[in-house]
Amino acid sequence: MKVIIVGGVAGGASCAARLRRLDEKAEILMVERGPYVSYANCGLPYHVSGVIEKEASLLVASERLFREQFAIDVRTNCEAVSISAKDKTVQLRNVLTGETTTESYDKLVLSPGAPSLCPPLPGVDLPGIFHVRTVPDARTIRQWIESGTTFLTGMANYTGMQMAKPTRRAVVVGGGFIGLEMAENLTHLGLEVKVIQRGTQVLGPLDPEMALVIENHLTRHGVHVVFGDGAAGFSQLDNGGIEVQTASGKTYPADIVIFAIGVRPETKLAQTAGIEIGERGGIRVNDSMQTSDPNIYAVGDAIEVKDFVTGKWSLVALAGPANRQGRIAADVIAGRDSKYRGTQGTSIIGLFGGAAAWTGASEKTLKRLGDDDYEKIYLYPNAHAGYYPGAKMLGLKVIFRKSSGLVLGAQAIGEDGPAVDKRISAIAMAIQLGATVYDLEESELCYAPQFGSAKDPVNFAGMVAGNILRGDMPVCHWETTGCEFLLDVREPVELAIEQVSGAINIPLGQLRSRLDELPRNREIHVICRSAQRAYYAVRILLQNGFKAKIVSGGMLARTHAVS
Amino acid sequence: MKVIIVGGVAGGASCAARLRRLDEKAEILMVERGPYVSYANCGLPYHVSGVIEKEASLLVASERLFREQFAIDVRTNCEAVSISAKDKTVQLRNVLTGETTTESYDKLVLSPGAPSLCPPLPGVDLPGIFHVRTVPDARTIRQWIESGTTFLTGMANYTGMQMAKPTRRAVVVGGGFIGLEMAENLTHLGLEVKVIQRGTQVLGPLDPEMALVIENHLTRHGVHVVFGDGAAGFSQLDNGGIEVQTASGKTYPADIVIFAIGVRPETKLAQTAGIEIGERGGIRVNDSMQTSDPNIYAVGDAIEVKDFVTGKWSLVALAGPANRQGRIAADVIAGRDSKYRGTQGTSIIGLFGGAAAWTGASEKTLKRLGDDDYEKIYLYPNAHAGYYPGAKMLGLKVIFRKSSGLVLGAQAIGEDGPAVDKRISAIAMAIQLGATVYDLEESELCYAPQFGSAKDPVNFAGMVAGNILRGDMPVCHWETTGCEFLLDVREPVELAIEQVSGAINIPLGQLRSRLDELPRNREIHVICRSAQRAYYAVRILLQNGFKAKIVSGGMLARTHAVS
Ligand SMILES: Cc1cc2nc3c(=O)[nH]c(=O)nc-3n(C[C@H](O)[C@H](O)[C@H](O)COP(=O)(O)OP(=O)(O)OC[C@H]3O[C@@H](n4cnc5c(N)ncnc54)[C@H](O)[C@@H]3O)c2cc1C
Ligand SMILES: Cc1cc2nc3c(=O)[nH]c(=O)nc-3n(C[C@H](O)[C@H](O)[C@H](O)COP(=O)(O)OP(=O)(O)OC[C@H]3O[C@@H](n4cnc5c(N)ncnc54)[C@H](O)[C@@H]3O)c2cc1C
Ligand SMILES: CC(C)(COP(=O)(O)OP(=O)(O)OC[C@H]1O[C@@H](n2cnc3c(N)ncnc32)[C@H](O)[C@@H]1OP(=O)(O)O)[C@@H](O)C(=O)NCCC(=O)NCCS
Ligand SMILES: CC(C)(COP(=O)(O)OP(=O)(O)OC[C@H]1O[C@@H](n2cnc3c(N)ncnc32)[C@H](O)[C@@H]1OP(=O)(O)O)[C@@H](O)C(=O)NCCC(=O)NCCS
Repeated sequence: MKVIIVGGVAGGASCAARLRRLDEKAEILMVERGPYVSYANCGLPYHVSGVIEKEASLLVASERLFREQFAIDVRTNCEAVSISAKDKTVQLRNVLTGETTTESYDKLVLSPGAPSLCPPLPGVDLPGIFHVRTVPDARTIRQWIESGTTFLTGMANYTGMQMAKPTRRAVVVGGGFIGLEMAENLTHLGLEVKVIQRGTQVLGPLDPEMALVIENHLTRHGVHVVFGDGAAGFSQLDNGGIEVQTASGKTYPADIVIFAIGVRPETKLAQTAGIEIGERGGIRVNDSMQTSDPNIYAVGDAIEVKDFVTGKWSLVALAGPANRQGRIAADVIAGRDSKYRGTQGTSIIGLFGGAAAWTGASEKTLKRLGDDDYEKIYLYPNAHAGYYPGAKMLGLKVIFRKSSGLVLGAQAIGEDGPAVDKRISAIAMAIQLGATVYDLEESELCYAPQFGSAKDPVNFAGMVAGNILRGDMPVCHWETTGCEFLLDVREPVELAIEQVSGAINIPLGQLRSRLDELPRNREIHVICRSAQRAYYAVRILLQNGFKAKIVSGGMLARTHAVS
Repeated sequence: MKVIIVGGVAGGASCAARLRRLDEKAEILMVERGPYVSYANCGLPYHVSGVIEKEASLLVASERLFREQFAIDVRTNCEAVSISAKDKTVQLRNVLTGETTTESYDKLVLSPGAPSLCPPLPGVDLPGIFHVRTVPDARTIRQWIESGTTFLTGMANYTGMQMAKPTRRAVVVGGGFIGLEMAENLTHLGLEVKVIQRGTQVLGPLDPEMALVIENHLTRHGVHVVFGDGAAGFSQLDNGGIEVQTASGKTYPADIVIFAIGVRPETKLAQTAGIEIGERGGIRVNDSMQTSDPNIYAVGDAIEVKDFVTGKWSLVALAGPANRQGRIAADVIAGRDSKYRGTQGTSIIGLFGGAAAWTGASEKTLKRLGDDDYEKIYLYPNAHAGYYPGAKMLGLKVIFRKSSGLVLGAQAIGEDGPAVDKRISAIAMAIQLGATVYDLEESELCYAPQFGSAKDPVNFAGMVAGNILRGDMPVCHWETTGCEFLLDVREPVELAIEQVSGAINIPLGQLRSRLDELPRNREIHVICRSAQRAYYAVRILLQNGFKAKIVSGGMLARTHAVS
């Protein structure tokens, strides 16, 4: 059996290595257009800033390793230019010499990834404008910045005035995870960074009110995000810099521009084979990673995946899924019965020490699908026991089925990155296993005061959601609370910080003795800092015959709730 | 309905608060023998060293809060001394005045905890010998150490020779989690700490080979553990110190002694009610937290719990379970149908920046139960992507059913505490939901280079276990590998560090061309650093007609494998 694998990184390399383990006899040829296989795309932004110091660290496995350990014929600088599905052949082109050859296959695996989108804007090819996708990309960005640095350092030495060092400016076009990682790393290098984002939020997979917290976090760390505008063109400035022109007519001067407006499945090659491309623009595969041609498999960023939660086709460019899909394709080619379960989209991004993470369906996805059998909650528990120093608040949103309690998705943000990771990873595991909020309620995660709480944030999420579903705690949200009677059960001292106009204040401790101040004919919406005391108040009110709801997340949710 | 709750901390206070939320009308009386309710036992060791600076931080909720927010009658310094189950009354004694009163109940909840074991050894009451269980305990330990410090500081000032400051010595009797937390915190205070441990390992719930890693970690941080010996008596030294005499006849001088040899369910009171005590010595309850008397409930450290994995009765003193059990007891009393699912024993202990954590069944538990339908694996993956700086190795042991793949238990250790936490918490979630190793294989946890790997350690665990169960990777372990043919597939340079005598070295890259050097009539056990290359080698060997197994965990497991 001869297997050709196109693309030698996350999906392709994983597939090749696994296939060799399963089948010593298969003839395996892996072709990669670029100069390296198995490189760490995910490390590129951190190499730009020098956090990952050596370029060599990014090269996870070498051609030589593939040859020696895996007896795989690897060809770098080798592009697959077309496929004849009928003849089962691939035409290969040596990108250095232009020479082409034809190779036949029994099975073909495509893992060509998803290049960074690059609209044909005027000036988009000017020097100083970069994409971040390959090791050479990172190298040229570093060189561009360093060459500037040397020059400026020289100037500073000459004048003896370090203070006079002019600010260098970066414009990052796009506020997705690659854009924001680049924004952070460029900031670390001392650049002044602006992010231009066409939409109204950063980090598309997050719900907007959660993304807002990240925006504030970015601002606090000196990264300015411009919303509702997009790059429209670029021109060279006299001082060697670039002027970014936006759709709205603004201009931003920059010493470097990073283009990161998203990725698009690489399907050119697939199209030459005539295999099916799905509605979202990715290669269509079944759960065995097989395309519409049973001898051609496809994996990674280039394919459409079934969303684990919604069951819909979607595009998710993540390394974990690419790796697992590559492994499954190898299994199937080797005659195994492996199946891909779909992608939850579990992701995390570290930003200035904090992190945002998410898994499963977002609220906006459910809304887009017209699915309204869901409820959501906002919680702001401590990342670990409040009495142990350094406890930082987590912002946690959990979305679940109203009819069954099934956990649909979760999003978390916080300054304690590992604490964010712990909760979303645990909930990701729960979602994969079909957990309900009642399972979260009873879950038993690690607890010692440095690491969690006796009732972990994940337990709290389950308890709060469970209380809603059991009817113990009617809930409403800032965006839907309106002309109801608003009761604030915080202490007077807390009101000094921020209060909601029109809300009546009765501190929780006084509620039982002041019930006669409350209306019996109106729905009472109760707020406090996080909604925990509001819940306690709602319990008192309901049992005394009032109609009451908590406002989920209380004042803390209000700071980022979108109206 | 009148409910009396005995014990006002983790289980009791959680029960009281929940019950009030479910039932505004219930009369709730919570009695606590000590001076405080709702304190953070788990924080006590950290308060001793001043990591948690203020004693007040440990008081999570006050009597006043219970009165005002929850309308609960709380009595501190109030001991329940006996129960008449027939009359449904409890006799209470004010521990300050000695006055006794009798209160009747409709439902009674016992959450009296588990005091620290204190065998009647000679001199066990000498000043300077402490247990760590209550806020007053921590306070007196602090005072004892501080008073010493003042004296010694005075001396040092007097002589002007800070260097002459004599070393102060602590002896911690017991190497469980409280003992080790105390050992760390006393070390932070500059004391020289010895831990005396009767058995052969620290941290009983861990398997011994995993505990060994913790012992080395302790040694590296200056804590010396003496095994196979126990405290037999104490006497006062002339210099004000204490001499600890051990069973083996050794003596250790100490300025302070901490007694932490374990806890024992508090059942004295329960016995006055005549309710059933289980075979392990804890109060016996059903999954509604009901004792043998349907009007009496019990929760927390005082009860026996069903082990979630083995289904056996066991004693597990942990705050999370105590909190959840308290909540469930309240539910049941309020007429709800809540059930406790059993305890997995998920735990974590932070030690000098690193951590050890575990969940589910240990190998020694399975052995004790005569259960041999299990397999185990050892892995040493990076806590996060190796190319991102600061990646530290995790040591991970996963135990699973041979017949079904069900995950039974996991143990992890590592210098990156949060990374240990993430994996054990995720696997704890998986175990609760009945996951198999195939689920771990396909799990989708958070990945960015600071937080994990495209294939997370949890995925690796699933893949490795899956490979064993699918028959792709026969496995053996250091303790069972014997006279087989030992093949080491590491590179020559690695052998320089450590090698196994008698092993034949063929680097993996040369294996295919040197197969004729290997015996066809003997089982080949293959080793490398972690067993990953050994696995690759085993695949080559099996497909070439050899009989081969990996030695799980390779050289890394050998460093702590017990023979
Ligand atoms: C800057 C950056 C940061 C990232 N950070 C994260 C992160 O933190 N977490 C995460 O989960 N994911 C992250 N990702 C995404 C992750 O890297 C991808 O999801 C993953 O690499 C996709 O694997 P793949 O095999 O589909 O494609 P790739 O890994 O992109 O590999 C595709 C390869 O195919 C080659 N190729 C394409 N066409 C041809 C052809 N015709 N012939 C020969 N070769 C061809 C390309 O040169 C490329 O090297 C990041 C990506 C980038 C760029
Ligand atoms: C130093 C230390 C560190 C710990 N660290 C951790 C950790 O990191 N993680 C973890 O999960 N767990 C930890 N624990 C364990 C955890 O604190 C317990 O599991 C939990 O507190 C048990 O709750 P409980 O309600 O059963 O008992 P407790 O919280 O001990 O409360 C029992 C209370 O009942 C009172 N009482 C007893 N008898 C009577 C009576 N007759 N009348 C009136 N009152 C009575 C006692 O005074 C006591 O205050 C730690 C414990 C200690 C001591
Ligand atoms: C380097 C690369 C080729 C490795 O692929 P791989 O050989 O499958 O190796 P991995 O490191 O993923 O290890 C997985 C294999 O080792 C096995 N393994 C891991 N630890 C083991 C252990 N302790 N004992 C035995 N086997 C072990 C696994 O079971 C698995 O084998 P399987 O797939 O046959 O079950 C591929 O991961 C790659 O190209 N990575 C870089 C590109 C990338 O992912 N970029 C995006 C993220 S930055
Ligand atoms: C302080 C103490 C009495 C609190 O008990 P509690 O009132 O149940 O409060 P918790 O902080 O645990 O919060 C849980 C309640 O708030 C609710 N809640 C939490 N966050 C919420 C939010 N954002 N919105 C709405 N409700 C929320 C939960 O659902 C839960 O209510 P429920 O049990 O009715 O479902 C008890 O935890 C205690 O004594 N702790 C210290 C002792 C201890 O545990 N020691 C051992 C560990 S160191």
